Amino acid sequence: MKITVWNEFCHEKEDDRVKAIYPDGIHETIAKFLREAGYEDVTTATLDMPECGLTDEVLNSTDVLFWWGHVRHGDVPDEIVEKVYQRVLAGMGLIVLHSGHASKIFHKLCGTDTVGLKWRESNDKEILWVIEQNHPITKDIDDKLIIEHEETYGEHFLIPQPDELLLVSWFSGGEVFRSGCVFKRGRGKIFYFRPGHETVPTYHIPEVQKLLCNAAEYVCGAGSKPVNYGWAAPVVE
Amino acid sequence: MKITVWNEFCHEKEDDRVKAIYPDGIHETIAKFLREAGYEDVTTATLDMPECGLTDEVLNSTDVLFWWGHVRHGDVPDEIVEKVYQRVLAGMGLIVLHSGHASKIFHKLCGTDTVGLKWRESNDKEILWVIEQNHPITKDIDDKLIIEHEETYGEHFLIPQPDELLLVSWFSGGEVFRSGCVFKRGRGKIFYFRPGHETVPTYHIPEVQKLLCNAAEYVCGAGSKPVNYGWAAPVVE
Amino acid sequence: MKITVWNEFCHEKEDDRVKAIYPDGIHETIAKFLREAGYEDVTTATLDMPECGLTDEVLNSTDVLFWWGHVRHGDVPDEIVEKVYQRVLAGMGLIVLHSGHASKIFHKLCGTDTVGLKWRESNDKEILWVIEQNHPITKDIDDKLIIEHEETYGEHFLIPQPDELLLVSWFSGGEVFRSGCVFKRGRGKIFYFRPGHETVPTYHIPEVQKLLCNAAEYVCGAGSKPVNYGWAAPVVE
Amino acid sequence: MKITVWNEFCHEKEDDRVKAIYPDGIHETIAKFLREAGYEDVTTATLDMPECGLTDEVLNSTDVLFWWGHVRHGDVPDEIVEKVYQRVLAGMGLIVLHSGHASKIFHKLCGTDTVGLKWRESNDKEILWVIEQNHPITKDIDDKLIIEHEETYGEHFLIPQPDELLLVSWFSGGEVFRSGCVFKRGRGKIFYFRPGHETVPTYHIPEVQKLLCNAAEYVCGAGSKPVNYGWAAPVVE
Repeated sequence: MKITVWNEFCHEKEDDRVKAIYPDGIHETIAKFLREAGYEDVTTATLDMPECGLTDEVLNSTDVLFWWGHVRHGDVPDEIVEKVYQRVLAGMGLIVLHSGHASKIFHKLCGTDTVGLKWRESNDKEILWVIEQNHPITKDIDDKLIIEHEETYGEHFLIPQPDELLLVSWFSGGEVFRSGCVFKRGRGKIFYFRPGHETVPTYHIPEVQKLLCNAAEYVCGAGSKPVNYGWAAPVVE
Repeated sequence: MKITVWNEFCHEKEDDRVKAIYPDGIHETIAKFLREAGYEDVTTATLDMPECGLTDEVLNSTDVLFWWGHVRHGDVPDEIVEKVYQRVLAGMGLIVLHSGHASKIFHKLCGTDTVGLKWRESNDKEILWVIEQNHPITKDIDDKLIIEHEETYGEHFLIPQPDELLLVSWFSGGEVFRSGCVFKRGRGKIFYFRPGHETVPTYHIPEVQKLLCNAAEYVCGAGSKPVNYGWAAPVVE
Repeated sequence: MKITVWNEFCHEKEDDRVKAIYPDGIHETIAKFLREAGYEDVTTATLDMPECGLTDEVLNSTDVLFWWGHVRHGDVPDEIVEKVYQRVLAGMGLIVLHSGHASKIFHKLCGTDTVGLKWRESNDKEILWVIEQNHPITKDIDDKLIIEHEETYGEHFLIPQPDELLLVSWFSGGEVFRSGCVFKRGRGKIFYFRPGHETVPTYHIPEVQKLLCNAAEYVCGAGSKPVNYGWAAPVVE
Repeated sequence: MKITVWNEFCHEKEDDRVKAIYPDGIHETIAKFLREAGYEDVTTATLDMPECGLTDEVLNSTDVLFWWGHVRHGDVPDEIVEKVYQRVLAGMGLIVLHSGHASKIFHKLCGTDTVGLKWRESNDKEILWVIEQNHPITKDIDDKLIIEHEETYGEHFLIPQPDELLLVSWFSGGEVFRSGCVFKRGRGKIFYFRPGHETVPTYHIPEVQKLLCNAAEYVCGAGSKPVNYGWAAPVVE
């Protein structure tokens, strides 16, 4: 399984608070725990690389793509978004993290304006409750996962009904949020995972790392045979 | 539309706190606000009536059945449960309230041990967030509905994935709960609505009343043609 | 309820076989049976009108939009598609007919390349079986609906799992197809209905007309309150 | 993974046509191809064994249970059904085959009278089309699977909407049917697979065998942590 971790990589260069938490960028932190979990083929890509680091060669060999973005969604060219989109339909797994909800690629795959939600940066406590039991993504996770401080997202979240709803968050300010959602599009699976604001060390939490490793396994395609679309002769006379 | 409101009617006779809130029983409070909303054909039935008040005549003419029970689920005879079940499959709407989650009829229609959830009587605040927009059941309801004090229910709730997830609750003690769920079974629609503990005046809240009136409209069958099951001749030669 | 019926209106002007069936265009046939069913406010719009006939004034007052297109999907400007998309998210109902599966607007709302399916113009018999019982869209429809001759569409159909699967078609050549699908996007409901090739008189069939009238009722929004997205103060302290 | 293949084992003893196809019973044919596929721990159980062969010891060590029954559903004691049901909710995978749709256990897990469908023994051709792409159960299966002669089942099939709809069948007599359905109940996954009438050699077909091996893998539980239900202290103060 080849994993590519994509990050817009802005906050970590400009904001000392963020740099202190993710000195090499969120992408390198994620790549590191994936490698430590035994995934050998993990690379990273960022917005400022040529073609956003997502060349045809990279995309065509990627089985699972992680995506973190926040303030520069608009700077990802539409051609790159289209290529990622086609790869997902063709079977590449996609894991969209936190503010990636407002990315062009998530928007395009959902069919709704996924920027729509309530939010607040107030370091609320977040408790993620497991809604679907015995799912591969929540393997070895307790019935809840507590994060002491996170940005708050609140419903209504402008997504289509997910194919699988795995996690719902509670926030101390009074909100709830569908924080772990699987969407199936064509041959590809997308997992949206809410936590991961840049000013808190969420991706350093072992349970979060475990869950994201599980997610990579889950969204990786089963390798079924592709379909021939288009004109078709009758099967029977 | 003929509505029957069923209640086990125990707490209200035995507990002065409950009697103070629902002097004629929860069923009469519900029947009253339904009538005031313009539904003319509303009757009530309780556990201690002959056949639990759910005779063939009553059931066969009922379009929507409300169900509140708590401590005497086991006293509803299986034959009555079977009749209600068959009526739901045939198109009768069913609205299961609060502790009715552990009733025989809800259990039987869900296919899981719906008694499974976390709970606590600690008068937490409950905030119900609307998850699906523009649904008939949440018509004229704000984006959230706040109840100052309620019993707490928490996930995991041992139900199948609902066909429609309309409401998710937040509780001040840290829990979340799928509080408004539509299930479709055969020709019938079931709406589960979480709030309504006997020691708090939830069914006197105007927004709750409005939502339950909307729900009655929604689960009432569309009147489509029934299907012939069993042996069938080929449609084409 | 204000209904607008949109049609690219090409085949009917260029192909005598089509003109014989729909002399004033598919849109006028649909508008006519809607009016005869009692909908008073029905207008039509076509591709060659200024702004495709979908001005802001038209769109903003439309409750339900029918969409038929086939060979000129690419000629609908992206700005028009974006406006229709925003109206659907805001609550306008959309009924996508037959080859409209490949339209820009359906593609955008689904989040997949909805052009993907098998097809064949061989005048197969089509039998549409009702999958979900007692749904408002199939009210007064028998357990199946037979169309003597239609274009064939076959699975796999490259759509996300519909929120409601109402009809599955059988074709004499050996194919099946998800022919009646409801998708919910934001505050809007979309109904995709497969039959309606331009060379066969499908929209003259009374059962098809009845079903499409039902569909117009169903996708028309419930009128619930809109949500405020964006920054939000805590609900509790 | 420990697999138990359960069969009522009646037709094969009483009907020479069936005996010719499945001389040791359908269960032994299924067990054989599972063992040949590399599953080492496969046992069988039949109706006439003590406790139907489903003792506590057998059930508690079974990860995946296959179920074939037809004419003696009523002879499976309710206590056995209850034990199987509890094991599924606790995480055991269940694969219900063909006429097992009318079994007590499938009925109980679905929450509907799953006996409801159309049927005909006329040796129709059946074509199973793959509806969900890239699913583990259809790995290495073509876009359709053709069975020359089978019993016909037709919609409407009285099941709740499946959590995953994988296969839809076409029959030469004009019917369609949801033939491959995943239901999730508690911690358990159930896969219903339609083909397998006793008078035709369906379970000898390599593609069917491959698909059922895939299904055994898929319904086998992920091994996530169980939940504590019941009274719960607040998570936050």
